[in-house]
Amino acid sequence: MEQALGSLTVQAQRQGLVEITDEIAAWLTEQKVSDGLLTVFIRHTSASLLIQENVDLEVQRDLESFLMKLVPESVTDYRHDAEGPDDMPAHIKGALTQTHLAIPVSRGRLMLGRYQGIFLFEHRRRPRPREIALHLIGQKSSS
Amino acid sequence: MEQALGSLTVQAQRQGLVEITDEIAAWLTEQKVSDGLLTVFIRHTSASLLIQENVDLEVQRDLESFLMKLVPESVTDYRHDAEGPDDMPAHIKGALTQTHLAIPVSRGRLMLGRYQGIFLFEHRRRPRPREIALHLIGQKSSS
Amino acid sequence: MEQALGSLTVQAQRQGLVEITDEIAAWLTEQKVSDGLLTVFIRHTSASLLIQENVDLEVQRDLESFLMKLVPESVTDYRHDAEGPDDMPAHIKGALTQTHLAIPVSRGRLMLGRYQGIFLFEHRRRPRPREIALHLIGQKSSS
Repeated sequence: MEQALGSLTVQAQRQGLVEITDEIAAWLTEQKVSDGLLTVFIRHTSASLLIQENVDLEVQRDLESFLMKLVPESVTDYRHDAEGPDDMPAHIKGALTQTHLAIPVSRGRLMLGRYQGIFLFEHRRRPRPREIALHLIGQKSSS
Repeated sequence: MEQALGSLTVQAQRQGLVEITDEIAAWLTEQKVSDGLLTVFIRHTSASLLIQENVDLEVQRDLESFLMKLVPESVTDYRHDAEGPDDMPAHIKGALTQTHLAIPVSRGRLMLGRYQGIFLFEHRRRPRPREIALHLIGQKSSS
Repeated sequence: MEQALGSLTVQAQRQGLVEITDEIAAWLTEQKVSDGLLTVFIRHTSASLLIQENVDLEVQRDLESFLMKLVPESVTDYRHDAEGPDDMPAHIKGALTQTHLAIPVSRGRLMLGRYQGIFLFEHRRRPRPREIALHLIGQKSSS
């Protein structure tokens, strides 16, 4: 059994979902592991991770709108407002989605479904570089 | 250390929660691993996974009702409506629950709490077969 | 490759978030594993786990308030009320947050971001002892 640790820095162009499947798949390929488990972990609390449909962009926009409405960027709803009206909602949206994902790997490929992509979910209005830690454990040939 | 990959196809009888603890425990037993970690991953974005109370059926019904009210199956709220009024809410409910679960294994058994069960959460009105990937890593005797 | 299983019992002082990063880091240190993956699993469905900002206490209070408003402790909203008005909301809040977390480990330390802490999220008004299972897999020196 082998393992590898890695990291990835991603910066979204805008507040919302940005797909990072290709970047993660590229790192996986470099590790030359056939079967195993990949864990993706975001080292921030105002951005998060999500596996979501990656075919129809409107799905992503609808999901962003839903969360924006559920957790409004209000100046009066939160005590924690020192970092701007989008900061506390960012923490809440992060809490309602994921800080980490784990995806089985088979024959060197992520076992994602046909319509699944891995997304960085940037919750701040002004995106910043986000550090993502990667952990892979597995082996070169099937047991 | 050993690992195993497997898969399970489950179809709910209705929209909502269906317990799959037994199916997963049966697969685990076949692997003859004593201590380790089991990862359960659903390869879909309009159904999800959840660990929830499995004793009182009313808990499951209340949880379904809560999410149905939080994410209504409306024809006017979403841009993505080509696949029916229940499709976009399905993606949102999936985002608010889990695509994967990981459960420690001790002495060949899932370390679930006394009242915990593993559920497939079918978010579409017309359930379809759902593919679940399983990954187990561990060893035959305690270290 | 080595692994370890452990457990931790934590009791919150009040309903809400209580940080448990130190307790988990202490267990990790005892295992003498350099690089690997730590999984934290809560064996309950009316309390949950969360990685969240651990600097400003107001973030934690705002998050608690948001969820309390989203999932009110009402006596009329739920069928399942035998265990009190806070029980069904506890299950729902648990479903919206996490039953397990996984965090990569590098050089013997959790790869948490600078402002990230691990929290037990107690959803019942009267906190009780909560059992948390720990699983660590990894090795003593980097591969």
